[in-house]
Amino acid sequence: MIKQLMNQIEKTKAPICVGLDPMLSYIPEHVVKKSFEEFGETLEGAADAIWQFNKEIIDCTYDLIPSVKPQIAMYEQFGIEGLKVYKKTVDYCQEKGLLVIGDAKRGDIGSTSAAYAAGHIGKVTVGSRTYSGFDTDFLTVNPYLGTDGVKPFVDACNANDKGLFVLVKTSNPSSGEFQDKLIDGKPLYELVAEKVVEWGSECMDGEYSNVGAVVGATYPEMSRILRKLMPHTYFLVPGYGAQGGTAEDLKYCFNEDGFGAVVNSSRGIIAAYKKDAYAKFGPEHFGEASRQAVIDMVTDINRVL
Amino acid sequence: MIKQLMNQIEKTKAPICVGLDPMLSYIPEHVVKKSFEEFGETLEGAADAIWQFNKEIIDCTYDLIPSVKPQIAMYEQFGIEGLKVYKKTVDYCQEKGLLVIGDAKRGDIGSTSAAYAAGHIGKVTVGSRTYSGFDTDFLTVNPYLGTDGVKPFVDACNANDKGLFVLVKTSNPSSGEFQDKLIDGKPLYELVAEKVVEWGSECMDGEYSNVGAVVGATYPEMSRILRKLMPHTYFLVPGYGAQGGTAEDLKYCFNEDGFGAVVNSSRGIIAAYKKDAYAKFGPEHFGEASRQAVIDMVTDINRVL
Repeated sequence: MIKQLMNQIEKTKAPICVGLDPMLSYIPEHVVKKSFEEFGETLEGAADAIWQFNKEIIDCTYDLIPSVKPQIAMYEQFGIEGLKVYKKTVDYCQEKGLLVIGDAKRGDIGSTSAAYAAGHIGKVTVGSRTYSGFDTDFLTVNPYLGTDGVKPFVDACNANDKGLFVLVKTSNPSSGEFQDKLIDGKPLYELVAEKVVEWGSECMDGEYSNVGAVVGATYPEMSRILRKLMPHTYFLVPGYGAQGGTAEDLKYCFNEDGFGAVVNSSRGIIAAYKKDAYAKFGPEHFGEASRQAVIDMVTDINRVL
Repeated sequence: MIKQLMNQIEKTKAPICVGLDPMLSYIPEHVVKKSFEEFGETLEGAADAIWQFNKEIIDCTYDLIPSVKPQIAMYEQFGIEGLKVYKKTVDYCQEKGLLVIGDAKRGDIGSTSAAYAAGHIGKVTVGSRTYSGFDTDFLTVNPYLGTDGVKPFVDACNANDKGLFVLVKTSNPSSGEFQDKLIDGKPLYELVAEKVVEWGSECMDGEYSNVGAVVGATYPEMSRILRKLMPHTYFLVPGYGAQGGTAEDLKYCFNEDGFGAVVNSSRGIIAAYKKDAYAKFGPEHFGEASRQAVIDMVTDINRVL
């Protein structure tokens, strides 16, 4: 699976994913109004607005990008109706040829992780048949429970040619509270990184492993160290743009082969029309604003590679 | 909210929750067959079998217990159809007067955790209205991202009188891989425990905080230490029964007031009819087997308190 992502990155020259993390406040009024007119101010109405918003952004950007990263929480907050639109978004992106990184940060004890893996990147057996519940190409995973909580996800990758990104060093302000704490002189995130390499060694797909790592753009010194520790691990890099990470901060996430990282931007792309730089598009053309923001992001990143 | 749980524990004399974590393999053949006859070997058929199974177990045990803990992964694996039955189960348990601990182990960066909190224990705003997506009474939370990833859940507890259980020391075999690592001479789980106490201090509800901790029954020496470190924190204790924890292992999870812990059993209760001890009930009376298993579990735990 990681080879497929690399191929699509090579084709588009865009080592990025667009974070489809819609908040209702990001969606232009005319879109929300239309959905509310049809479905009322209901969970269904909110979900429809999100779907219309996503669809327009996908239609305006899919030919420029290799992948998207829907954040499931933004759908889950609207309950079942929201999750239906998560699934619809996943399917639509895949129809458009995009790889989908489900950002779910799941993780539990072994048998429970196996259920999550089946639902998101695997198959569940029902009588004599099998089904895939959400069926994304990649999934983000939380490592706090250790190997037996991660292993079922790795197994699902091997069985179905899928990929993972395991949280190593996250982009948020308080990520250091536990992740940076020193254990025998090494921060916890390095210890997690070593485990990710170990888990990933069973899952190689060419030069890189299908088991990747989440490494925030907001801590460039740490990503430099992690890049060396994990030469065959792909990084999913959140934190560029709205969270404060710059292109210069990102360069250490890449290897000398130009591969090794896929950089996410959510708000910076999907709510671009709200920024001064793209205000000229206006809310009516929010999709075009997102397209221009993608072009600018790719230029910005390629400048430092 | 924690006071409400304590009241219900006092009333039932049962410091337990029943883990509604159905696997299709736990469900008696006659139940599965009936659902497949109606809906086919489909996700809907699987979900219906789970619902019929849950309903029978709830009907047979609700008067004996204060709370249930559905593990959302077991529903999520069946996609949207599974999640509909998660919601239906939550609602039905609440109608029966049970408190529901949603075992979802969510956790992300701040704005994303806020979305999870809204969906599971809070409210989401849609135009001029608000809705609750899943609306459980408690939620389990993963602390790997630190304070800003947990704070939105704490805020939702305060706004809606709900409760949390934050993962501190989990019950699985490899939980020690990261959680036991020493940081300045103290294991990581103690550091997390200190933070849980800090987060919970803003959330007191009588003698205990609405911010509780997950502490596995399988590591009794550690729960003894954690009990002392967190005198006003309620423990959700997985690992009793099928995972190997005994009643003797549990006693350190309780305070001298007889409160302080709610012990979970999943397979041991819901699949009781498959165990030799309850085989006499037969698959036809699996609900009665679960009822007897609850009675025996409560007796076993109260014996050591």
